[in-house]
Amino acid sequence: MKSSTSYLTFQVENRMDFVNITPEVQETVRESGVREGLCLVNAMHITASVFINDDEPGLHEDYKAWLEQLAPHDPSRYRHNRTGEDNGDAHHKRQIMGREVVVAVTRGQLDFGPWEQIFYGEFDGRRPKRVLVKVIGE
Amino acid sequence: MKSSTSYLTFQVENRMDFVNITPEVQETVRESGVREGLCLVNAMHITASVFINDDEPGLHEDYKAWLEQLAPHDPSRYRHNRTGEDNGDAHHKRQIMGREVVVAVTRGQLDFGPWEQIFYGEFDGRRPKRVLVKVIGE
Amino acid sequence: MKSSTSYLTFQVENRMDFVNITPEVQETVRESGVREGLCLVNAMHITASVFINDDEPGLHEDYKAWLEQLAPHDPSRYRHNRTGEDNGDAHHKRQIMGREVVVAVTRGQLDFGPWEQIFYGEFDGRRPKRVLVKVIGE
Repeated sequence: MKSSTSYLTFQVENRMDFVNITPEVQETVRESGVREGLCLVNAMHITASVFINDDEPGLHEDYKAWLEQLAPHDPSRYRHNRTGEDNGDAHHKRQIMGREVVVAVTRGQLDFGPWEQIFYGEFDGRRPKRVLVKVIGE
Repeated sequence: MKSSTSYLTFQVENRMDFVNITPEVQETVRESGVREGLCLVNAMHITASVFINDDEPGLHEDYKAWLEQLAPHDPSRYRHNRTGEDNGDAHHKRQIMGREVVVAVTRGQLDFGPWEQIFYGEFDGRRPKRVLVKVIGE
Repeated sequence: MKSSTSYLTFQVENRMDFVNITPEVQETVRESGVREGLCLVNAMHITASVFINDDEPGLHEDYKAWLEQLAPHDPSRYRHNRTGEDNGDAHHKRQIMGREVVVAVTRGQLDFGPWEQIFYGEFDGRRPKRVLVKVIGE
C-alpha cells in the first residue's frame, strides 16, 4: 500500500469565500503515485469546509446568502461568542457545507463526474488555515 | 490491496426522489472480493446526493417537504439560474443531504447498524445520472 | 494492509446531547497498529451523528438551539411519526450534522488540526447506541 500526506495552506481575504482547490489536490494525487485508491481532503480548522460542487460564481453567491440566512453572522446570537470569539456563525455554516470529501482515485486520476470541483469553504477568514490531503492505495 | 470501481446509472422520473441503492452496492462489494476495507459511494452529479437513513416512505415525504422549505425550487430565487439553469435549489438541497457515504466492509459485508440503508437522492431528475462505488481493502 | 474494526456503545441520558469520543477513537487507532491510513468513524443508528468540531459548551448549546429551530421536536410535524415513533426530528437533525467522519492516520496518530475533536451526536437518546470505528492502512 502507498500513502501520501500533504498540507495546503490558504489565506482568504474575506470572512466568507470559496476557493477552487482541485488543481492542488490533483497534483498531490499525481505525486503520490497511487493509481487505485481513495483521496481524503478535509479542512483542519473547524470554521471551514471542504465540499464538492459547481465552479459557478452565481451559485457561490447563492450559497453565501443562504448560509447567512441559515446561520447569520450577528455575534450576539451565539453563546460561543461569550468566549471572546465572534465566529459562532462559522461553526454552524461549516456543518451545513461539511468538513471533508472522499474522492475515488482511478487510473491515477480523481474519478470525477462531469462538473465536480473541490472547494475550500472559508467562514472565518483573513488568517492562514490548512487543508489536509491524504491519499492511500496502490 | 484489492480495489474495484463501479458506476451505477439512475434515471429518476420526478424532479426530487430517493432510491434505495443498497442491493446494488452490496452486490458490488461481493464482486470486489474485499473482506476488510472501505466502500465509498458518491453521487457523480452536483445536484444529487448519496446518504444513509431509514427506508420509510413517511420519512422520505418529510425530507422532501423540509428540503423544499430550506431551499425552495422557485427558479427566480437563485443567481445560478441566470446561467439558463432552473436547478439552483438542487445544488442547495444536495449540500444538506451530502455527496457521499463511506461504509466499512467487514467479513465481506457492508457493516451496517440495524436500520441503515443507502439512498440515491435526486434533486434534478428526469435524466440519467451516475453513482460511483469504490471498494478498497483486502 | 492492516485493518481493525471496533464498536463503541453510548447511552446518552438526554434526548439530544454531544459526547466527545476522541479518546476512544485514538485508543482504537493505537491498538490497530496502523501508522499511515484512514480512520472511519460513523454512527450505526440513523438518529445520531458523528462530527468534528470544537469542545466548547457554549457552542454545543448553540448547536442544540439551532437544530431545534431547523427541525423542531414537535412529533405532530412528521409523517414518520405515524409509524408510532416520536423521533422524526432526530432523522432530520442527523442529516445536518452528518453520519460519519473520515480522519487521516499519520505516524500512528489521528492527523488533526488545532481544535478538531470527534463527537457523537445523539438526537434520540436514553437507550444504548453504537458507533463503528474502522481503521485501514499499514
